[in-house]
Amino acid sequence: MSTAEQTAGGEAEPWGEVTPDAARRLLVAAVEAFAERGYHATTTRDIAGRAGMSPAALYIHYKTKEELLHRISRIGHDKALDILRTAAGGEGSAAERLADAVSSFVRWHAGRRTTARVVQYELDALGPEARAEILALRRQVDAEVRGIIEDGVAAGEFDVADVQGTTLAVLSLCIDVARWFNIEGPRTPDEVGALYADLVLRMVGARRPGTGRG
Amino acid sequence: MSTAEQTAGGEAEPWGEVTPDAARRLLVAAVEAFAERGYHATTTRDIAGRAGMSPAALYIHYKTKEELLHRISRIGHDKALDILRTAAGGEGSAAERLADAVSSFVRWHAGRRTTARVVQYELDALGPEARAEILALRRQVDAEVRGIIEDGVAAGEFDVADVQGTTLAVLSLCIDVARWFNIEGPRTPDEVGALYADLVLRMVGARRPGTGRG
Repeated sequence: MSTAEQTAGGEAEPWGEVTPDAARRLLVAAVEAFAERGYHATTTRDIAGRAGMSPAALYIHYKTKEELLHRISRIGHDKALDILRTAAGGEGSAAERLADAVSSFVRWHAGRRTTARVVQYELDALGPEARAEILALRRQVDAEVRGIIEDGVAAGEFDVADVQGTTLAVLSLCIDVARWFNIEGPRTPDEVGALYADLVLRMVGARRPGTGRG
Repeated sequence: MSTAEQTAGGEAEPWGEVTPDAARRLLVAAVEAFAERGYHATTTRDIAGRAGMSPAALYIHYKTKEELLHRISRIGHDKALDILRTAAGGEGSAAERLADAVSSFVRWHAGRRTTARVVQYELDALGPEARAEILALRRQVDAEVRGIIEDGVAAGEFDVADVQGTTLAVLSLCIDVARWFNIEGPRTPDEVGALYADLVLRMVGARRPGTGRG
C-alpha cells in the first residue's frame, strides 16, 4: 500500500520528516494497520509486528497508540496546510490560485489516500488536547481556501452567494477523493486534479477569460 | 445518536423495514457500535449487549457479524437508490430533477450520517459475494445521476465536458456530507441540500432561466 501511495502521490519520501528510521517505520506500519482494521481494532503489538520490531522497541518511540495517531494526524494536517498555503500565496489571479489549490490538494488526497483516510475517519479517537490542536489546524486549512474565494469575490472574478458554505463544499470535494480514488481506476491523480479544478471554478462562478461569465 | 439521526433525517422510522423488533434493535445497535469503534473492533457480544440481549438471542437473527454489516449496507444502498430514482423519474427539466436529486441525497446523508459512514467506510469488510452485490447497487446509483446529466446535455440545458467525471464528483460531494455534517453546526440538512443543489447546477453549467448561462 505504501508503495502504491508513493507512486501515485509523487512524493519521493513520505514521512521523511520522521526520524530516526525506526520511528518512521513504526508510523508507516501504524497508518497501514489503522487503515486496514481501524484504530480501535489495532494494538501496539500489531504495529510493532508489522514494522518487524518488538513492543518494547515501539515504546522507545511512542508511549501510546494515541501518540502514533496524533503524530500521523499532525503531520498529515501540516502537509495539507502547507499545500494550500503555497497555492494561496502564489502569484496569479484568484482563479489561478484556486485551481492550483484544488488540483494540488486533490493530488495529495489521491496519492496519500491511506493516510488521509486514517486522518479523516479516526479524528474522534484523539484525546481532547490532541483533538483541539488538530481542529485548530483544520480551521487554518479552511481559512486558506476561504481567503482565495474572498479575494476572487472582492476582485469581481467570482460570483459566490455563500462564501463559507462554498469553502466547505470545495474542501469536502477534495477530501473525499481519499475515499473513492482507486489507483487501478481510469483516472490519474493529475487528471482528477484538473477535472476538479474546472468544477470548482464553475462552483465559484469564475469568469472565463475572453468568454464572459462561465 | 439514533435520536439525533431521526430528528435530523426527518425519517419517522429508520429501519422500519426490519422485522421483528428484536432484529431491528440489533441492527441499530450494530450501526452505533460499528460507527463508534469500527467493524473490526466490535464483537457480536458488544452488539447484543447494546441491544440488551444475549449473544444467543443475536444468533437467532444474524449468523455472523458480517451478515449484520451486509444487511445495513444493503438497506442503506437500497434507500440511496430509491431517493435518486424518485428524483430522476420526476417531472420537470433536467436542472429541476438534478437539484431535487442532490438536495434529497444530501438531506439523507446529513440525517442518516452514522449509517452512511458505516456503509461507506466499512465496504472492505464485506465478503466477496456481499461486496459484489453492493457494488452493483453503487453502479445503479451512479447511473441515475449520470442519466439526469446526460438528459440535460442532450436538451442543451447543461454544458458538461466530462459526464462520467462530473457524475462522480456530484455523488462524492453528497456522500461526504456524512463525514462532516454536525447536528450542532450552523446549517440544517435542508440548508445544506439547497446550497449543494445550487453548487451542482453550477458544476453542470446549467442555464439559469431568464439570465442566460449561469
